[in-house]
Amino acid sequence: MINVSVPIDRLAPYRDKIESSLASALAEFSEPNCLYEPVHYLFEAGGKRVRPVLTMLACEAVGGNPDHAVHAAIAVELLHNFTLVHDDIMDSSAKRRGRDTVHVKWNTSTAILAGDVMMGMAMRLLLRSAAHAERPLDVVDAFSTGLIDVCDGQALDMEFMLRNDVLPEEYFMMIERKTARLLEMSVAIGASIGNATREQRSALQTFAREIGIAFQMQDDYLDAFGSETFGKVRGGDIMEGKRTWLMIETCARVESDINALDEHRRIVETFRSGEPLSADNVNTVISMMKQYGVDTDATTVVEQRTMIAFSQLHTLAPSDARDGLETLARSLMGRTH
Amino acid sequence: MINVSVPIDRLAPYRDKIESSLASALAEFSEPNCLYEPVHYLFEAGGKRVRPVLTMLACEAVGGNPDHAVHAAIAVELLHNFTLVHDDIMDSSAKRRGRDTVHVKWNTSTAILAGDVMMGMAMRLLLRSAAHAERPLDVVDAFSTGLIDVCDGQALDMEFMLRNDVLPEEYFMMIERKTARLLEMSVAIGASIGNATREQRSALQTFAREIGIAFQMQDDYLDAFGSETFGKVRGGDIMEGKRTWLMIETCARVESDINALDEHRRIVETFRSGEPLSADNVNTVISMMKQYGVDTDATTVVEQRTMIAFSQLHTLAPSDARDGLETLARSLMGRTH
Repeated sequence: MINVSVPIDRLAPYRDKIESSLASALAEFSEPNCLYEPVHYLFEAGGKRVRPVLTMLACEAVGGNPDHAVHAAIAVELLHNFTLVHDDIMDSSAKRRGRDTVHVKWNTSTAILAGDVMMGMAMRLLLRSAAHAERPLDVVDAFSTGLIDVCDGQALDMEFMLRNDVLPEEYFMMIERKTARLLEMSVAIGASIGNATREQRSALQTFAREIGIAFQMQDDYLDAFGSETFGKVRGGDIMEGKRTWLMIETCARVESDINALDEHRRIVETFRSGEPLSADNVNTVISMMKQYGVDTDATTVVEQRTMIAFSQLHTLAPSDARDGLETLARSLMGRTH
Repeated sequence: MINVSVPIDRLAPYRDKIESSLASALAEFSEPNCLYEPVHYLFEAGGKRVRPVLTMLACEAVGGNPDHAVHAAIAVELLHNFTLVHDDIMDSSAKRRGRDTVHVKWNTSTAILAGDVMMGMAMRLLLRSAAHAERPLDVVDAFSTGLIDVCDGQALDMEFMLRNDVLPEEYFMMIERKTARLLEMSVAIGASIGNATREQRSALQTFAREIGIAFQMQDDYLDAFGSETFGKVRGGDIMEGKRTWLMIETCARVESDINALDEHRRIVETFRSGEPLSADNVNTVISMMKQYGVDTDATTVVEQRTMIAFSQLHTLAPSDARDGLETLARSLMGRTH
């Protein structure tokens, strides 16, 4: 785990700029009301705006004007929220950021269509920033790749829930697409608008991808080992039968241990069968994870991935924006402190 | 109605090119199988490929190389099919082109995600063609506008089903967005790839938009007055309570007629209330439409819109591609013959 607690105020000007530009951009879309009301509702709920800040910082870190990237940054946030609206339908999630999800507050048709139109809005806004780039089609290309990858990742996630033989490396492939590639896309777009060299863009992409994987691994770790102060029930992933690296790896280690306890074997069988685990099982699963060292191995993966990410940043010339990227990554990873 | 029956063979080379390029493009997308299998299934069912042919012809008609537009043409077809997959969920349609719809054959989540990824695939393919254009961002801009408009149109269509006071001009606004703008987008993209002048592009857009409106009006007309040889039940729209121009206009004329028959008034009240009309009512509704001259007025609108469309074509220099656009429009409008 990252143990450094840093102030994040230096990012406030970027967030402010994003919020005001987002409000202006959304105001361009109001009719038909039945379509755009859910879109406005979504953004009223706020959010950390991690991805759009990444876009602006990446642009600035390669020597570009971050204001040129602000519409692309909003496009990235629209894409992110599009995935949330559609994922919430697929996952039958009733709440998001403490409020009713769109398909619950309105209906499934409205949520499908609101997501779809957000993609169109995102493309239109993206073009305003792309026009500043020397190679504008690179900007749009990164966006389309992000969209394809995030759909691939969501499809894998849904497929894995129906499979009992998901491998650890498949888990990494899934979170890379579902979580990390949107962060990678966010910096790739900013870098292209800032006319980055190939090396700069590549370094930023590796940085964002590795932070994304580290973040998702840590999120999974905290589900089992974190405190319960983040509005999540401890062991929620375990009870939902999620195919996290922690669970997959723990099951594999139990199965290859000839001295494994019967109780542990039964839990692994239940998990493999796709049956839900009860709240009573959560503490046993957590002690299994500890016994087989999966908890410390997960921590090691998080640390390694984070180190790779930061090492990429150091290939860029020093700048406030580069420091901002590091600040943002640390605040993402250090949220337990 | 258009009474001219013309051979459409001259368009076969464009369709062949589109089919072979579509097959190659789809082959680039195969994993995860659970996501792309439904996409491949959709395109196996074939289709008239009207929109991609429009894109290639528009490019050629302004002096461009139609081969440069082929990937954009496929993108347009992907966008069209994306709308069909999502609309079928919203409309709870079980069949499409004689086969199970994606959400019926798989499930709603798969259909949502397959539609979403098709949008990403479309964007990626679009860029290959956009790279040939002098102003590549115009190509992407037309695409994003098409996506936004078609979502707006679908939202209006759903909203109108819940309203009892839809006006005739609102109907035109809805079909313009839901049906006509995708045709308009198809030619706008082709024109931009062919480096059209502003006047050429504008003429092509008006041509496609007017043909789109004429086509939708004719489709509505044929639902009530056509033969039953097209796989549709006569009066299907009437029984579904669709807010077509024919129904809206008929109701308005009955309501403003102080001598209207009680039977007619009762039908109008039922329609206004949103209650379904029975199969027994269909013939009465059709005779109402005739009595109030709505049938001949609809025919007049179709003819006027079609004439406006063709007059736009004549502002372009004569070419095989211009003739091809006329052929395509005639085959679209003349399908009863």
